[in-house]
Amino acid sequence: MMKRTIISAAVALLSGFAVSQAAVASEPIQPIKPPANINLGMVELGKKLYFDPRLSKSGFISCNSCHNLSMGGTDNIPTSIGDKWQQGPINAPTVLNSSLNVAQFWDGRAADLKAQAGGPIANPGEMAFTHTLAINVLESIPGYVREFKQVFGKDKITIEEVTLAIAEFEKTLVTPNSRFDQWLLGKKDALTKTEMEGYTLFKDSGCIACHNGEAVGGNSFQKMGLVEPYKGNTKGVEGRVAVTGKDADRFNFKVPTLRNVEMTYPYFHDGAANTLTEAVDIMGRLQLGKKFTKDENAKIVAFLKTLTGDQPNFTLPVLPPSTDSTPRPTPFDKK
Amino acid sequence: MMKRTIISAAVALLSGFAVSQAAVASEPIQPIKPPANINLGMVELGKKLYFDPRLSKSGFISCNSCHNLSMGGTDNIPTSIGDKWQQGPINAPTVLNSSLNVAQFWDGRAADLKAQAGGPIANPGEMAFTHTLAINVLESIPGYVREFKQVFGKDKITIEEVTLAIAEFEKTLVTPNSRFDQWLLGKKDALTKTEMEGYTLFKDSGCIACHNGEAVGGNSFQKMGLVEPYKGNTKGVEGRVAVTGKDADRFNFKVPTLRNVEMTYPYFHDGAANTLTEAVDIMGRLQLGKKFTKDENAKIVAFLKTLTGDQPNFTLPVLPPSTDSTPRPTPFDKK
Repeated sequence: MMKRTIISAAVALLSGFAVSQAAVASEPIQPIKPPANINLGMVELGKKLYFDPRLSKSGFISCNSCHNLSMGGTDNIPTSIGDKWQQGPINAPTVLNSSLNVAQFWDGRAADLKAQAGGPIANPGEMAFTHTLAINVLESIPGYVREFKQVFGKDKITIEEVTLAIAEFEKTLVTPNSRFDQWLLGKKDALTKTEMEGYTLFKDSGCIACHNGEAVGGNSFQKMGLVEPYKGNTKGVEGRVAVTGKDADRFNFKVPTLRNVEMTYPYFHDGAANTLTEAVDIMGRLQLGKKFTKDENAKIVAFLKTLTGDQPNFTLPVLPPSTDSTPRPTPFDKK
Repeated sequence: MMKRTIISAAVALLSGFAVSQAAVASEPIQPIKPPANINLGMVELGKKLYFDPRLSKSGFISCNSCHNLSMGGTDNIPTSIGDKWQQGPINAPTVLNSSLNVAQFWDGRAADLKAQAGGPIANPGEMAFTHTLAINVLESIPGYVREFKQVFGKDKITIEEVTLAIAEFEKTLVTPNSRFDQWLLGKKDALTKTEMEGYTLFKDSGCIACHNGEAVGGNSFQKMGLVEPYKGNTKGVEGRVAVTGKDADRFNFKVPTLRNVEMTYPYFHDGAANTLTEAVDIMGRLQLGKKFTKDENAKIVAFLKTLTGDQPNFTLPVLPPSTDSTPRPTPFDKK
C-alpha cells in the first residue's frame, strides 16, 4: 500500500514534469534561468563599484542612482538626472535581467554589460568623470587595491577590470520565480482567470511578436510607431540609426523587457507613459493598429503584473574609505 | 584536577571581568551599547522610507543620498547636494550613532531623531517636498498603506508615523565592536602601542574634554575657534545662536561624534578639512592652543581610526511600487 502510494506519486510527479516541460517548450515566453558560471569574488567587488558614487565627478552619483535596485533597477522618472542636475535625453532602462538583452542601451550601441558599464562614468551628462580619474580614485584606496588584486591577480587596476566586475554583478540581477514563471513551470493555479485571459490576448493580438523569450523583450530592435507615428518627446533621440547609420533604423529602439514592468514605470524610451494602461493602449494602436477595449487592456495589464519576479536580495555593501591621497570629488564649481 | 582547572578558569574569568568593568568605568569613553527596546516592524518600515526617493520633489533624493549607509552614514563631500543641485550650507553629519546625540543638526535645532527626520523632506534646499505631498505619495501606494497599518494600527498615514518609523530605523544604526571598544571591554591586545599612545595624548591634551562618552562627542555644544578664530567657510552659518538667540552661542556647534571618523571625511561643519591629520592639527591649535608635532598628530590619528565599528548590516530594501494614482515626481521644470 505504502509502496504503491509512493510509486503512484512518483509517476504523477514524472508525468506532471513531462507536461510542464512540454508546456514551457511550447510557450513563446521562457522562465528565467538563475545565472550560471558566476565569479562570486568579482560579484562582490562589482557590487561595491555599482554603489560607489566616487566613480562620478561629483561623488554623488553611482550606477545605483539611476538603476536603483530598490526600485526595479531604474529611477522611476522619465529621463535621468545627471551631473549638475542635467536632464538626460532618454529613460534609464532597468538593469534587472539586462544580461538577457541582445545589446545594451536603447540603441544597442554597447555589445554587452561590460561595454555598457564604462559609458555613464565618462558621459559628461551623467557621471561626468573620466576613466582615468575613476582609476586614480580606486588606486588610492587600499581596500579596493587589495580586492582587485584578490579577484584579478594583478597589481594594476584598469577600466577593463572595473567594467568586468560591474558586469559580473549585473549578471546576478535576474528576477526568477515570478508568478508567470511558476505557471510556466507547472503551477497551474499560479495565475488567475483574468491574468490567463490577459496572456492569451497578449499572444493573440501580436504583442508577443516582439515581447517574447526569457526577458519578454530585449532581443530585437523595432520601430517605435510602426502603424501610426509616435508623438513623444523624441527630440534628438533617433534610436538605432545612430549606431548603424542606416536610415531604415531611424526610430528603431531595442524592445524593452517586460519583466518587472509593474516596477519600471514610466514607460517607453522617453518615459512619456506614466501607467501600464496608457502604455498598453499606445502600443496597441501604434505598433499593432489595434484599439484594446478597456476590459482587454485591464486583462493585459493584469497579465503583465504577473511578470514581477524575486528582486535582488543582498546586503548593502560597505565601501572602503578614501585615504588622504584620494582625489576629492568636485560637485560644485569653485566660487 | 579537572574540577580545579574549571574553577581556576572561572575565577580568572570573573577577575578579568572585574578588571575590565573597572577599566571601562574609569575611562571617559564608553563602549557603544547595542540598541534596546527596538520595534522591528517599525524598523523595517523606516528602512524603506529612508531609502525612498519618492519622499523628495524630484523622486531622486532619499535620506540615504546624503546619509549614505555605504559610506559611514554621510556623503563624503563638503556640503550636500540638494534638489536641482543646490549647494547645501553645511556638512551632512553622519547618521551613525546619531541616536546618542544630545540633539540633532549641527545647531541642535531638533530635539531628537524623529524631529530631525521631517526637516530635509520639507527643506527647499534639500528634498524640496512638503509633508502633505509626501503623505499623498505614501497613501497612494498600497504596499505602504498596509505596512503602516500593520505597524501603527491606523488607516491614516501622517508625518508623525513617517518620522517615527525613520527614527526607529536610525536607532539601529549604531556601530559597536570597534577595536577601541574591544579594548575598553577587556581585550588588552586590541590596540597597538602607537594607538594607545594616541589615546593617552588625546586625553592628556584635552581633546577628551569635548569628545567623550559613548559617541566620543555629540553630547555638548562648543565654540568653533575657542583659542584662535576659525577661518572656514562659515558664510551664513552661525551655529547654536540661530536656535537660542543668545549672542554667546554664536559659532557654537554640536561637537561631532568621532565614531567611524575614518569614514566621515571631510571634517567640520563646513567640511573644509579633508584629512584627519588636518582636522587634528586645526582642532589642537584652535580649540586647545596646542601645536601637535607630526609624531603626536600621527598617533592621535592612529587612535581615531580604532573608533571604526561594525557598519550597519542589512538587506537593501525593495520599495513597494507606485500605482496609477501616485503623484509623479517633478525633477525638472516643464519646458
